[in-house]
Amino acid sequence: MSSAEINKNEVDIVIGALNADLTQFLTSWRPFFSGFHLIVVKDPELKEELNIPEGFDVDVYSKTDMEKVVGASNSTMFSGYSCRYFGYLISKKKYIVSIDDDCVPAKDPKGFLVDAVTQHVTNLENPATPLFFNTLYDPYREGADFVRGYPFSLRSGVPCAASCGLWLNLADLDAPTQALKTEQRNTSYVDAVMTVPAKAMLPISGINIAFNRELVGPALVPALRLAGEGKVRWETLEDVWCGMCLKHISDHLGYGVKTGLPYVWRNERGDAVESLRKKWEGMKLMEKSVPFFESLKLPETALKVEDCVIELAKAVKEQLGSDDPAFTQAADAMVKWIQLWNSVNSSS
Amino acid sequence: MSSAEINKNEVDIVIGALNADLTQFLTSWRPFFSGFHLIVVKDPELKEELNIPEGFDVDVYSKTDMEKVVGASNSTMFSGYSCRYFGYLISKKKYIVSIDDDCVPAKDPKGFLVDAVTQHVTNLENPATPLFFNTLYDPYREGADFVRGYPFSLRSGVPCAASCGLWLNLADLDAPTQALKTEQRNTSYVDAVMTVPAKAMLPISGINIAFNRELVGPALVPALRLAGEGKVRWETLEDVWCGMCLKHISDHLGYGVKTGLPYVWRNERGDAVESLRKKWEGMKLMEKSVPFFESLKLPETALKVEDCVIELAKAVKEQLGSDDPAFTQAADAMVKWIQLWNSVNSSS
Repeated sequence: MSSAEINKNEVDIVIGALNADLTQFLTSWRPFFSGFHLIVVKDPELKEELNIPEGFDVDVYSKTDMEKVVGASNSTMFSGYSCRYFGYLISKKKYIVSIDDDCVPAKDPKGFLVDAVTQHVTNLENPATPLFFNTLYDPYREGADFVRGYPFSLRSGVPCAASCGLWLNLADLDAPTQALKTEQRNTSYVDAVMTVPAKAMLPISGINIAFNRELVGPALVPALRLAGEGKVRWETLEDVWCGMCLKHISDHLGYGVKTGLPYVWRNERGDAVESLRKKWEGMKLMEKSVPFFESLKLPETALKVEDCVIELAKAVKEQLGSDDPAFTQAADAMVKWIQLWNSVNSSS
Repeated sequence: MSSAEINKNEVDIVIGALNADLTQFLTSWRPFFSGFHLIVVKDPELKEELNIPEGFDVDVYSKTDMEKVVGASNSTMFSGYSCRYFGYLISKKKYIVSIDDDCVPAKDPKGFLVDAVTQHVTNLENPATPLFFNTLYDPYREGADFVRGYPFSLRSGVPCAASCGLWLNLADLDAPTQALKTEQRNTSYVDAVMTVPAKAMLPISGINIAFNRELVGPALVPALRLAGEGKVRWETLEDVWCGMCLKHISDHLGYGVKTGLPYVWRNERGDAVESLRKKWEGMKLMEKSVPFFESLKLPETALKVEDCVIELAKAVKEQLGSDDPAFTQAADAMVKWIQLWNSVNSSS
């Protein structure tokens, strides 16, 4: 798809503002964000006024707006990187594209700036193929096709729920890896989009992501948070957990999740060595989460995304609740999220 | 790994000779095949003498050799592309690399010829990661790592059973696709190796493949053949079926299968439009095979590859035998293959 073929009225670009000055960020994205509606959600703990350059179709949401919608006691659930979720909640569009505010457009190997918005929407509009692996990558891409032996009955694919983009320069590593490999930079531009097979688990990152809000909106749930997380990505687990929920629910409902293009160029933020001094709780929680998701089977009666999230929360509480209080809190947050989603999206 | 780091005594390069004149093929591969032991297996239906340029460490096997090993009545199982399997059977090495004789070295985007042998052996020597998907592709590649959220307990990976390479120029399409898109050429060089997740099915191609013979040798089984198949790849199903057996057995035994690099440059052979006139039976058989493999569960008592193939054959006969006689023949061929494998590999 070309940029001109995209119906811009169907897309919200959601930006979580963790820095007050968005000038450089938005200026760098201007060629690709122009004409789209932007939802900028300000981290409720950020005190300074936002600096937003002119010429964008943008709505800004702050702590006051959050309190109006979810109540004063609930606004803390949107602190730090989690503020993006507020944008997901109040959007009315079919597609959401969300990119962290420390990322700028990447260059492809030919030196052209990558239009991440168009690539994400293309990924979402084309079918996904989670039920059989195509070794030639995205079969719907121009010049590509299904490989010999690919079952004909599966060649029409299934709806694509989410598109996970990647990162050049600073890759999305966890705190210990980032601290140990401070000099490592990702220079490998892999020119491919693929569907992650059904039942395969992956750690979805919130840095550069898009999804079909109509299909799976409520599955993008802010839930599992580490103590003090949310200001630097490498200490964050919330989006990884949310991604496992999203993938599992997509598998259950017969949708696909893609990974690969588009790349963004990710700049540094935070002190990785400082992070190494902290104990990274995420490591322990992931070890518990993986066997949980591996054995999880949502009931066949769960046909709506909202039902799936509620069922998932129930299973988390029952099976993981005694392991760590973070899991009980996550289960409660998932239930609360569905209540919020229903109230915001039915009242409108 | 560099070419110099490879123990050449651990590798057999198996070439199925469907054409008598291997001069151009072997000359093009000389920089990468030099110093390795080659097993050239002549299609038993090929009448002319083989033309092999000097300077290679090569053993040639013909119909007479096959008859000595498997008996006169069994040599037909090695006709056409299936002749490669004879090389797999009689090799004594740890690794097999096999490339079709209509392929020459590809060029990478920088214009360098791709050393497919070194890349395959590198893929096999490094662990695979089938239990969790790494969005940053091969985590063991220089400059790469595991992405945030990847469970630490899974970062040591599992042994790699097979490495499936790809094709530039003529991609590996089936007969109908190839005939309908006669002009289509694959120009997309995707610079990545990845592990196909456990339980995901894929159509493995025999055109450009390598495997760890010590780990999974008997799983590379010639079994499901279409009537008259074996002279042009796009009409062939045997390697696709073999690949599904290999993947399923690898999953069962806890090994991984990789796909991606290395590419080879694939030239044309055969008349695709002529193929379109034929009914492609493979289509029908694949539709039956997929649900079979999807629901298949090998018994936990099957701990050796040989046991797995026998159990698989039993399931094929029971569940698919009544659908099509090709499946019954495949099951019988699988049992016979294990008998052959045991007799050849225990007598030596």
